[in-house]
Amino acid sequence: MPRNGASEEPRRSEKWKARRDTIVDTSAQVFAKRGYHATGIVELCAANKLGKGAFYHYIGSKEELLAAIHDRVMDEVLLGADRVAAAGGTPSEQLAMLGDELLDVIFRYPDHVWVFLHEFPALTGERAERFRVRRREYERQVQAVLQAGIKSGEFRKVDPRLTALAWLGMHNYTYLWLKVNGRLSAREMAKPFADIFIRGIAR
Amino acid sequence: MPRNGASEEPRRSEKWKARRDTIVDTSAQVFAKRGYHATGIVELCAANKLGKGAFYHYIGSKEELLAAIHDRVMDEVLLGADRVAAAGGTPSEQLAMLGDELLDVIFRYPDHVWVFLHEFPALTGERAERFRVRRREYERQVQAVLQAGIKSGEFRKVDPRLTALAWLGMHNYTYLWLKVNGRLSAREMAKPFADIFIRGIAR
Repeated sequence: MPRNGASEEPRRSEKWKARRDTIVDTSAQVFAKRGYHATGIVELCAANKLGKGAFYHYIGSKEELLAAIHDRVMDEVLLGADRVAAAGGTPSEQLAMLGDELLDVIFRYPDHVWVFLHEFPALTGERAERFRVRRREYERQVQAVLQAGIKSGEFRKVDPRLTALAWLGMHNYTYLWLKVNGRLSAREMAKPFADIFIRGIAR
Repeated sequence: MPRNGASEEPRRSEKWKARRDTIVDTSAQVFAKRGYHATGIVELCAANKLGKGAFYHYIGSKEELLAAIHDRVMDEVLLGADRVAAAGGTPSEQLAMLGDELLDVIFRYPDHVWVFLHEFPALTGERAERFRVRRREYERQVQAVLQAGIKSGEFRKVDPRLTALAWLGMHNYTYLWLKVNGRLSAREMAKPFADIFIRGIAR
């Protein structure tokens, strides 16, 4: 499964792609502020300083735009998880790196993540399925690290699925307050989170 | 500050209040499914099997309804925190009980909590302020337990605010997946969560 939504727009120019990315980012801000359902194409065109024709040259529909916002987040999250897997290390080190990477995405894309976590039920059909598959892929990678730690005896025998969800909650939920808590960077927050979690599941 | 929104409707009958509560609950389901902004009064009337006149006999405005949904959650959350404070015990026991109570509310009011966490930016003026104050009151109670544990030497010297937010994230975020993870009760989930968190901050 391609990670950048390339399947939907084959053989476009780099310039077209860059412009589309900018539209996706600007629209994420609008959706985060006003909600997906409440925002119309007219409003999206205005925010992007585009006529309707030009807008549809880049984006097929409002739902395609929503899917692109989801992909932007999932692309980054999955790339981060790949970097962690490639880096190696103990399960504790892997889990700490995963937290670092995840908070980094949330801090860099607060509006996208807001839209992602609030509006995913608006995705339908294949787009909903693609999102579910990619999210599960990431959850599986977190679970795999936990299972490796249990197997090596580094972690106690926790329920990997429940523990992965606890870990995800602790990290994902920062999207709600990172803006008001601006004193800390993603990395400064990831460290104490990792300390709590890894001690919490250590054998 | 009254906990049941009584300030807005002085001296109403018990029957009126019970009917209003039912409307709040039914409307929470509709908002959770379709979003607050996308749902109109006509739709709310249909879901509640009420004419517009009868609807406005119970609810002053759509935003008042949204505030009532927030209050329903916060009433329960704050009552739970009061029960924990009254029960006494060590900071670890207090934190475990707070988790039990919080997950119990999330499991009993999944639609309200969904609306609560997604639509709170739609509250304005005094209603937004009331919500902020009540939410902060709860966060302070969680922080107070953490601080008591640090002071007694039961917990290590964590940042109480950051740690409270980590704890809240781990618990609150369950609203996203408890429906698909129906195999566990609130209590069965609260126990492993408490184990992770309390070990994680133990000295």
